Amino acid sequence: MNHEVALERYAELIIRKGCNIQPGQSLYLGADAESRDFAIKVVEAAYQAGARFVHVDLGDDRIQRSRILHSQQEEFLDHIPRSLPVRFDEAVEEQGAMLRLVGTSDPEALSGLDADRTNRCRIAGHKAATRFFDDGIGRSAVQWCVASAATIGWAESIFDHLDGVAARDELWEQLLTIVRADREDCLGAWEEHNRQLKSRGKALNELKIERLRFNGPGTDLTVGLSHAARFEGGGAISQRGQEFIPNLPTEEVFTTPDYRMTEGTVQVTRPFLVNGTLVEGLTIEFKDGVLSDFTAQKGGETFRSYIDSDPGARRLGEVALVGIDSPVFQSGHVFREILLDENAACHVAVGNAYKTCLEGGVEMTPEQLEAIGWNSSTAHTDMMISNEEVDVTAVTTSGDEVPLLVNGAWVSQ
Amino acid sequence: MNHEVALERYAELIIRKGCNIQPGQSLYLGADAESRDFAIKVVEAAYQAGARFVHVDLGDDRIQRSRILHSQQEEFLDHIPRSLPVRFDEAVEEQGAMLRLVGTSDPEALSGLDADRTNRCRIAGHKAATRFFDDGIGRSAVQWCVASAATIGWAESIFDHLDGVAARDELWEQLLTIVRADREDCLGAWEEHNRQLKSRGKALNELKIERLRFNGPGTDLTVGLSHAARFEGGGAISQRGQEFIPNLPTEEVFTTPDYRMTEGTVQVTRPFLVNGTLVEGLTIEFKDGVLSDFTAQKGGETFRSYIDSDPGARRLGEVALVGIDSPVFQSGHVFREILLDENAACHVAVGNAYKTCLEGGVEMTPEQLEAIGWNSSTAHTDMMISNEEVDVTAVTTSGDEVPLLVNGAWVSQ
Repeated sequence: MNHEVALERYAELIIRKGCNIQPGQSLYLGADAESRDFAIKVVEAAYQAGARFVHVDLGDDRIQRSRILHSQQEEFLDHIPRSLPVRFDEAVEEQGAMLRLVGTSDPEALSGLDADRTNRCRIAGHKAATRFFDDGIGRSAVQWCVASAATIGWAESIFDHLDGVAARDELWEQLLTIVRADREDCLGAWEEHNRQLKSRGKALNELKIERLRFNGPGTDLTVGLSHAARFEGGGAISQRGQEFIPNLPTEEVFTTPDYRMTEGTVQVTRPFLVNGTLVEGLTIEFKDGVLSDFTAQKGGETFRSYIDSDPGARRLGEVALVGIDSPVFQSGHVFREILLDENAACHVAVGNAYKTCLEGGVEMTPEQLEAIGWNSSTAHTDMMISNEEVDVTAVTTSGDEVPLLVNGAWVSQ
Repeated sequence: MNHEVALERYAELIIRKGCNIQPGQSLYLGADAESRDFAIKVVEAAYQAGARFVHVDLGDDRIQRSRILHSQQEEFLDHIPRSLPVRFDEAVEEQGAMLRLVGTSDPEALSGLDADRTNRCRIAGHKAATRFFDDGIGRSAVQWCVASAATIGWAESIFDHLDGVAARDELWEQLLTIVRADREDCLGAWEEHNRQLKSRGKALNELKIERLRFNGPGTDLTVGLSHAARFEGGGAISQRGQEFIPNLPTEEVFTTPDYRMTEGTVQVTRPFLVNGTLVEGLTIEFKDGVLSDFTAQKGGETFRSYIDSDPGARRLGEVALVGIDSPVFQSGHVFREILLDENAACHVAVGNAYKTCLEGGVEMTPEQLEAIGWNSSTAHTDMMISNEEVDVTAVTTSGDEVPLLVNGAWVSQ
């Protein structure tokens, strides 16, 4: 593929389909500083689409590392600049668009840090953005999109045999293929893909599923769904009435479980990052809806600190289905980045649940949400639980058992 | 010199002397994204000095270029995010510290743009920061410092014979030498240098100067001073009572002229940038205190648009004296960056004047300021007017003529 042309197509995809920028709308763009060449292509596409203003926040995880390592007083870690919630509120009130380009220039920047200090920062930051998460994301006041951009450090962590710019170029090739930007009709391909995800969600909702069963090597897990659970996938509709695609890529259909009905054992099939530390070879046990025990080959201590950061962090907040036809799975790579890896396989998340996946959920009272097992937490981390050896079966409210995925592949499209 | 050691000394100089960060104080740091490795050294030094929080704003001039080029509606160029003045106000109210690391990664990014669109953006941005400029900078509520960091693009624009990393390394060598970070006792050297600038300012104030005369090839300029004018130089004292050094390097003593008394012709001795365009070979004429005419070999159109952006942009706002002993002059380079170049030679600025260089100026009413010829503008651009061929003479209130610089060199220390 012509790399430059594909990059411009990708920037266009992000602005026209991911964020779907409308004339006069503002965009809030966050990216690693190393990715600024691509970020500027996105800025250009945004202004060309009629954006009023593009806020650009170029970051570097080493800044956060330095803070966590060197803050001279623990309570400084709670500090939130006054302008930060104002910025979040502004995005919500003006019904702006939000784009996050993931891909850190230094995958090790946040590893090996004191877990309590790290969580202290994370929780303070989450509180400052409560309204943004509740209204901006939860009620789709903003059109939000998470996409990725290649960096050298990230690429080197993926490819054993490549270094420097060669690694980054290879990662770009993979990313551009996965988001279909290698295709001339990239936007059309996404319209078709989006239609497929929508119709898959609709078919699942019509089944009236009470439980999902995951079976495979080391895995015998039941995830219960409330009567209000609705499968979502592909684009969402903002309060402006515009469709946007929250994740690029997105290959999943997903819903909000009744966390109290989670039971059994599950083998996590791919490594994943928690606060910058890779957790590998994880096996989890759920009893009465709570993550009661686990074993890990690597990263166990970080995982324990994370799930102990608040009560909701040990309860289920998401279940998602992905077939092995996913281009992320097909790439054969573990990207060490959840945006990609969650789209390689079925997954469950501990932590906060989406109200948007519950019929009427956004308007429910805390008591109503509690009554159907909606989970609340400052945490949310996806864990992949399928591959070519895992089957997924739906048990419907009428007791029927319907195979959904067999050997990791969708039974019907 | 050991490059890494000198860089850490420089970061330490910026934090301990430039900003003089106090325990619990917050720092607002802005830098080009390419300079993030050095910026992170500064962040580290700040947290180690006890900073509460370091705001880091990593930028890229191509973002602004994209906005000016591609905004679909002219009025979008006036847009100021609501969070921006909040951030400025916060810095003022908490008496924070502000650091700007200059050195763009793309010296051409802002050149060749429509001058009216560029000025429209600049003026809107200036208005949003009025309180920050008035109270934060003008009344030293914040401890502010402008320093520099090398980038490849900037370095290539300076050195004809060097490219890429080699150019950047050479620029770092020059910068580190100029800010005395090549010396083991860098902080001590700055204490001594600061003392010298202070005593020079004191000696000039004791002369009771009414006019400064600049004479040299193509230059016969008189700059008048009001009775309230005070020469400043070196460190300033913040509202917290802490000394900080607003510019690194700083080699000047400077004051606020009575703009109405500016008369004559002046040959600008070094090129300088206006909105990203280099202005070269400039000769200016002042009549009755107003820039009445000019000729330029390059950049004349940009210069004309700039001085026409408001009435104050054609009147004088600063006069500064620098000797040829300055390490910037000694380096033999034109750095195409005003922070460095203004410290190579005597200079005058058109545009906004400092109230802090007027006895009681910060508390004066607009009428009082007007009565002593204080200039107000959204513009402020320094133009260098001395070299080894220029003499500067003071004419005192009692009519004495005192030579200050002869052939560009200070007559007395």
